[in-house]
Amino acid sequence: MDTGGVEDGPATGGLRRPSARRGPRDERGVLAARIVEVARDSFARRGLAGTTIRQVARDAGVDQALVHHYFGSKRQLFNVCLQPPPGFLDDVAAVARVPLELRGAAMIRLLVSSWEDPDRGPVLGALIQTAAHEPLAHDRLVSILSRQMQGVVSASLESEGHAAAAIRSGLCSSQLVGIAMVRYVWRIEPLASLPAETLVTLVGPVLQHYLTDPL
Amino acid sequence: MDTGGVEDGPATGGLRRPSARRGPRDERGVLAARIVEVARDSFARRGLAGTTIRQVARDAGVDQALVHHYFGSKRQLFNVCLQPPPGFLDDVAAVARVPLELRGAAMIRLLVSSWEDPDRGPVLGALIQTAAHEPLAHDRLVSILSRQMQGVVSASLESEGHAAAAIRSGLCSSQLVGIAMVRYVWRIEPLASLPAETLVTLVGPVLQHYLTDPL
Repeated sequence: MDTGGVEDGPATGGLRRPSARRGPRDERGVLAARIVEVARDSFARRGLAGTTIRQVARDAGVDQALVHHYFGSKRQLFNVCLQPPPGFLDDVAAVARVPLELRGAAMIRLLVSSWEDPDRGPVLGALIQTAAHEPLAHDRLVSILSRQMQGVVSASLESEGHAAAAIRSGLCSSQLVGIAMVRYVWRIEPLASLPAETLVTLVGPVLQHYLTDPL
Repeated sequence: MDTGGVEDGPATGGLRRPSARRGPRDERGVLAARIVEVARDSFARRGLAGTTIRQVARDAGVDQALVHHYFGSKRQLFNVCLQPPPGFLDDVAAVARVPLELRGAAMIRLLVSSWEDPDRGPVLGALIQTAAHEPLAHDRLVSILSRQMQGVVSASLESEGHAAAAIRSGLCSSQLVGIAMVRYVWRIEPLASLPAETLVTLVGPVLQHYLTDPL
């Protein structure tokens, strides 16, 4: 184990702690993932302003210089932490290709499977908990809840016009976000423990109503 | 104006800044209200952990000792900031006395009027933004969304039993919370600017469905 003060480039500063040692490539991956996990949790708890690189480094058990070396500034780290996981936006877009009469159920199924996915859930959680105060998170959330969702809603409903589709998509978003908060963020019973398919049965028809019924 | 270093008791420490001067009783009220406003915003942005009395005092333009003198510890200040505004819980309970077939509309009307009330809106906003990580806020939110809401739902539905009422109340809560997030916390259009009565027309029937339809 190389735990000495060997620098692997000018940007790292001196990495002296054992946990921040140079190592094989996959070790970099492991450390970076740990830093992102810790940082994401801190951003969700304390926001961008309340999070410091120093405290992230301490909680991840690495040197502060390593965090800067891997991620640059705090804002860049924040950006990485809120990156939509690979495939997520494709999956949202795919819901627009589900037959219209099944799309309500498809929406709530995607919400449940995404939040229960170990890669996607934490990103969605951090996004939803920072969007009120951080413009970057707000933009990402608006992009998902507004632009993406509107694509899902307006596919095969085009005759109705943009304004109506935007309201339908806003209403669907509101119901999905509310389920996410109660079930996943706050874990309030009984919704927190309902089987996924029960939730689909309960909420699917409401999403379908917002999608296709006269409002 | 008495701006001197006159102490008004041992707990205040030395209050030397003009903005933290001793004054008539209503001035105490004004300063306390300003501190609560600043602190509530900080708790919502940065959580309990990311908020310091020092920074609250600075943002409110008062001495740190004054904040401690008025409110005690940071946790006590947090508690005050999340206190449900007078009358709010009574108004929630009153919805249970609205005839069952009008109760869905009454729920969304109360949500809108509460969030748009200058005393109630900020408390609800701080509650909803800190409940994920602060047990005190979580307890208050569960009390409103679960116990209070279940009272609203189960009034005149008692024959169905506790478990069903809890699911109905969870579903109503999820829809109400989702509207609060999209419209008030994130201000995403078009829901953010819809007239209140349009929202009642759109969301009332869904709440009514969760309340009284076979699920």
